[in-house]
Amino acid sequence: LKKIAIIMGSKSDMQVMQAAADIISEFQVPYEVSIVSAHRTPHRMVTYAERAKEKNIGVIIAGAGGAAHLPGMVASLTDLPVIGVPVLSSNSLLGIDSILSILQMPGGIPVATVALNNAKNAGLLALRILSVSNEELYLRLSAYREKMKNEVEKSAAEIEKNINF
Amino acid sequence: LKKIAIIMGSKSDMQVMQAAADIISEFQVPYEVSIVSAHRTPHRMVTYAERAKEKNIGVIIAGAGGAAHLPGMVASLTDLPVIGVPVLSSNSLLGIDSILSILQMPGGIPVATVALNNAKNAGLLALRILSVSNEELYLRLSAYREKMKNEVEKSAAEIEKNINF
Amino acid sequence: LKKIAIIMGSKSDMQVMQAAADIISEFQVPYEVSIVSAHRTPHRMVTYAERAKEKNIGVIIAGAGGAAHLPGMVASLTDLPVIGVPVLSSNSLLGIDSILSILQMPGGIPVATVALNNAKNAGLLALRILSVSNEELYLRLSAYREKMKNEVEKSAAEIEKNINF
Amino acid sequence: LKKIAIIMGSKSDMQVMQAAADIISEFQVPYEVSIVSAHRTPHRMVTYAERAKEKNIGVIIAGAGGAAHLPGMVASLTDLPVIGVPVLSSNSLLGIDSILSILQMPGGIPVATVALNNAKNAGLLALRILSVSNEELYLRLSAYREKMKNEVEKSAAEIEKNINF
Amino acid sequence: LKKIAIIMGSKSDMQVMQAAADIISEFQVPYEVSIVSAHRTPHRMVTYAERAKEKNIGVIIAGAGGAAHLPGMVASLTDLPVIGVPVLSSNSLLGIDSILSILQMPGGIPVATVALNNAKNAGLLALRILSVSNEELYLRLSAYREKMKNEVEKSAAEIEKNINF
Amino acid sequence: LKKIAIIMGSKSDMQVMQAAADIISEFQVPYEVSIVSAHRTPHRMVTYAERAKEKNIGVIIAGAGGAAHLPGMVASLTDLPVIGVPVLSSNSLLGIDSILSILQMPGGIPVATVALNNAKNAGLLALRILSVSNEELYLRLSAYREKMKNEVEKSAAEIEKNINF
Amino acid sequence: LKKIAIIMGSKSDMQVMQAAADIISEFQVPYEVSIVSAHRTPHRMVTYAERAKEKNIGVIIAGAGGAAHLPGMVASLTDLPVIGVPVLSSNSLLGIDSILSILQMPGGIPVATVALNNAKNAGLLALRILSVSNEELYLRLSAYREKMKNEVEKSAAEIEKNINF
Amino acid sequence: LKKIAIIMGSKSDMQVMQAAADIISEFQVPYEVSIVSAHRTPHRMVTYAERAKEKNIGVIIAGAGGAAHLPGMVASLTDLPVIGVPVLSSNSLLGIDSILSILQMPGGIPVATVALNNAKNAGLLALRILSVSNEELYLRLSAYREKMKNEVEKSAAEIEKNINF
Repeated sequence: LKKIAIIMGSKSDMQVMQAAADIISEFQVPYEVSIVSAHRTPHRMVTYAERAKEKNIGVIIAGAGGAAHLPGMVASLTDLPVIGVPVLSSNSLLGIDSILSILQMPGGIPVATVALNNAKNAGLLALRILSVSNEELYLRLSAYREKMKNEVEKSAAEIEKNINF
Repeated sequence: LKKIAIIMGSKSDMQVMQAAADIISEFQVPYEVSIVSAHRTPHRMVTYAERAKEKNIGVIIAGAGGAAHLPGMVASLTDLPVIGVPVLSSNSLLGIDSILSILQMPGGIPVATVALNNAKNAGLLALRILSVSNEELYLRLSAYREKMKNEVEKSAAEIEKNINF
Repeated sequence: LKKIAIIMGSKSDMQVMQAAADIISEFQVPYEVSIVSAHRTPHRMVTYAERAKEKNIGVIIAGAGGAAHLPGMVASLTDLPVIGVPVLSSNSLLGIDSILSILQMPGGIPVATVALNNAKNAGLLALRILSVSNEELYLRLSAYREKMKNEVEKSAAEIEKNINF
Repeated sequence: LKKIAIIMGSKSDMQVMQAAADIISEFQVPYEVSIVSAHRTPHRMVTYAERAKEKNIGVIIAGAGGAAHLPGMVASLTDLPVIGVPVLSSNSLLGIDSILSILQMPGGIPVATVALNNAKNAGLLALRILSVSNEELYLRLSAYREKMKNEVEKSAAEIEKNINF
Repeated sequence: LKKIAIIMGSKSDMQVMQAAADIISEFQVPYEVSIVSAHRTPHRMVTYAERAKEKNIGVIIAGAGGAAHLPGMVASLTDLPVIGVPVLSSNSLLGIDSILSILQMPGGIPVATVALNNAKNAGLLALRILSVSNEELYLRLSAYREKMKNEVEKSAAEIEKNINF
Repeated sequence: LKKIAIIMGSKSDMQVMQAAADIISEFQVPYEVSIVSAHRTPHRMVTYAERAKEKNIGVIIAGAGGAAHLPGMVASLTDLPVIGVPVLSSNSLLGIDSILSILQMPGGIPVATVALNNAKNAGLLALRILSVSNEELYLRLSAYREKMKNEVEKSAAEIEKNINF
Repeated sequence: LKKIAIIMGSKSDMQVMQAAADIISEFQVPYEVSIVSAHRTPHRMVTYAERAKEKNIGVIIAGAGGAAHLPGMVASLTDLPVIGVPVLSSNSLLGIDSILSILQMPGGIPVATVALNNAKNAGLLALRILSVSNEELYLRLSAYREKMKNEVEKSAAEIEKNINF
Repeated sequence: LKKIAIIMGSKSDMQVMQAAADIISEFQVPYEVSIVSAHRTPHRMVTYAERAKEKNIGVIIAGAGGAAHLPGMVASLTDLPVIGVPVLSSNSLLGIDSILSILQMPGGIPVATVALNNAKNAGLLALRILSVSNEELYLRLSAYREKMKNEVEKSAAEIEKNINF
């Protein structure tokens, strides 16, 4: 199984990005985490992106806020699928700047954007991507989805019991 | 190699979604195209999404406009990676409605969102996903990226020659 | 008198949706409350929507946040009037994502959208809908509106008495 | 069967609101159309709204653009369900002003808002509302939804036949 | 000198609207304050607006939030100048709904809109309007503007003294 | 009767601002029109604003687009009421930049903002302001409003006659 | 005098960026123009930015649309002042994506952002920057500003002559 | 070396603008700070802007919130480069009003806009501008950028050490 890389522009993004590590960890898929800043370490970003494949990385998750250039730049430097997580940072315009800077990539260089601060979904998307060629992981993802369903049904049963007219 | 499915809410979306088929076709990867409407054919959508895997589909690209529910609903009914293409339709608010309806999925069900109307990038993202376990496709993607680079360098050379001070 | 169904995507939405139950309760109209998630329990959603009519439900109120697909999907699976309540959830873009995902339905499948978090108005709208064929309920709604008017006039009298120049 | 009233702020809105008349007409439900301007004929608006019920009107559809006050004001003057259609007018900010002026009603006075310019859905919503107490109309609505489904399936079949890899 | 009327949709708006009363009071111009709700007391609104002139009111300041119909409706029922104050209320979309509902009036019925929550400026605008025919009030407004200037210059002097390089 | 000044940032704004001149002209109130650019003629702006009162001007209407500083700056240089018209210019963000630059003035310096491109309403607002101390003008404004009402009623009668069910 | 570099993401941006070249040319300041794409030629971008200083470039103007990463990335690779021009491209959300991707840079790496499509102002800003150490250029900029003033005054005189009451 | 001027509309903006002073101070470049309000002290603004050059100021940084006219007006009164800092003030619409009022300047008068509240980047941009003709300052800026890089690499090393799979 290939590894998932989780990178982010600054240490403070870890608060949001931890959820990606957590869910991947729950599925026992190997991953690595690092800090790679498009603006403060552009050369490190180039090297990181270009060496990812040879390090057996299969998918890169990149989180960034504001004028979030990391996911798009990484996607420009590798052919691995890159997932972008818009991070809500201070003085960010609700995160709309982060979303648009990651989402609105020009034709030729795709970034798979997930919802604002939704590193958990970035992790799940990376797992779905790896499961395309890994039946066992696919089954674990199906079981996870089944579990979510059961939890909702349990809440539903409780609420239906408690609220009477 | 697995197939890529390209689905959309209505025939009129084909104008935008054709670009996904074109780029996938250029890479000679098998794909299928169909119309699946979340709102007008909800049962067809359920069946389509749930049978995708057994039809050897590896990635689903779903395009929709306005209150675009197709990508998110399909992602709720399968564990394959689902790519959402926000389509700019008439009376859509610049496409912001399409973007947010696809992007802002709750934790648990990821959709890989690409830029507004950018079906080409949806196709390229699907190819990157399949290439995670297909070295030959990965190399073709790298060649494609190299070709884009060469085209820009050619434009640059032309413009530098023509504009003098 | 038919029943009003109040459903929502997750237990946490109950905080907002309670106001719908409260106002309906105040009018002594029968209702039921449940959890139905478009994304985590799509089959439950299909069944719930398709069986609503035979359970003597007359109107369905559905609350959801973010990429809020529940109201629109339910409206696609029944011909009962469906009222959508955009819920402001965390990491939601002020609730604009919820509003647009519910409001901007394509031609053919209508959803009656109310203001952000305004479950009370969803309840009142459901009551107005049932009152179309129930004169007695209509009169109670008129009395309720009269009472609101009296309250404003009382505030006005107080403020006019207290603020002098 | 009660009548559906379709009103709008100015004659020019008829271009958009015609679709409501058309769909109601298709279902052979009685309706009336008029011009009622909140800003230029406030007294006419008061009278129209307050007399609607005695004219056997069951639902009021009100379309308006810009600072669209008509739907909300009518809902303040009657207890009939009122459906608001945000109309995109010139110098309107994409119709966002119309949407918010209609949607964001305070607690106590509900307006059932539909998508921008979507008078067709306003008509269908009015029909769903009347069908709550009219089984025959409900069945016709179900047949209409079935027909839409068939049309999508037909498009799907065509597209699947024509696009081969 | 004519009176200035300050009205608002609900008692809770007084927190914001007090600033209008305060500044008018500072200029010793007569004013009255009341609660007039477009949606809960539409008839009171009609009467209030139509009788304002005969009560010797010269300008009406109307504050409202969300789908803020009060300023525009009052302007439709009188020929006095009407100043609208968009009030930021809970579940309001940053106040953008209030702003657009007040600002985007159709041709024929003008509302003088001031900044979000800026009741102080509404008061000053009302005073400027009355001063068009009252030289003495005009001079007091000039003195007020002079005083603001002096305060800024004092701050400037302080900051220049304290910050040295 | 005092004069109304209509100024704008550039000659091209005249297309929009003409409507102010037209309506004022219709009421036979004296006015003057000029070009005053905050950014290209700041000294002219200072002089124009500061001399307006001595030229017997009673109200200033200022139209501008983009980062529209003219209305706010003029209001900072005089105590006359200033009406701002946000003009939609090319490369303007729907006119939202013009609206916010004019509307969101700080406490102390009020600008009476009207709807985007709505110079007609700016003219009517100026007339309402002058009519505060001019009964005859007030009556003409009432007659104008009455005429609008009659026109709507005429449209209504026509549409009611032509649309039958 | 140092040179001004004008770069852009693709040849099609030249339509907008030409205005920068034109104004710089009018001031007879040396400049060069090239195509440098952040996403399609990331290495070329690194080299271009890092070598700019040694090529005697004093200021870099970078134009880009959508998820516009070029200005920010260039500013990350040099210490020359970088001016960003948000370009309105197709499927761009009014250019808001371009603006925010360029403007909302994190602390440490500044980009001087100008208005949407306003390459002329980018050129003038570059000239102002060079004039900080070049008195003669400063005087030419003052003369240019004087000329603009004269043109407005001429328009004003014409309009004042032609519009009479 | 020329001085950098840091001005702002009110004392309360100092909280945000301090960061500009801090970073300039860190580079030991002379600067001055003052309060200049476009709306409350327009004449002071004219004088300040027009005398800046003779006071040996090389760059002006101007911060303002809401309808932020200070940066644009100052740029209209001098030919020095002017940097605008949009300040998030209370009742500001997320700061979007401040951003657009500063950014969307018309052709002819450029303002170098930085991110919301990002006075630090304004300071760095001013330093980059002065460094165009000061090699020593340029080298210090390069060292500063190098230091940022080292800090990120240190964070990266730490996080890589601590997070293991």
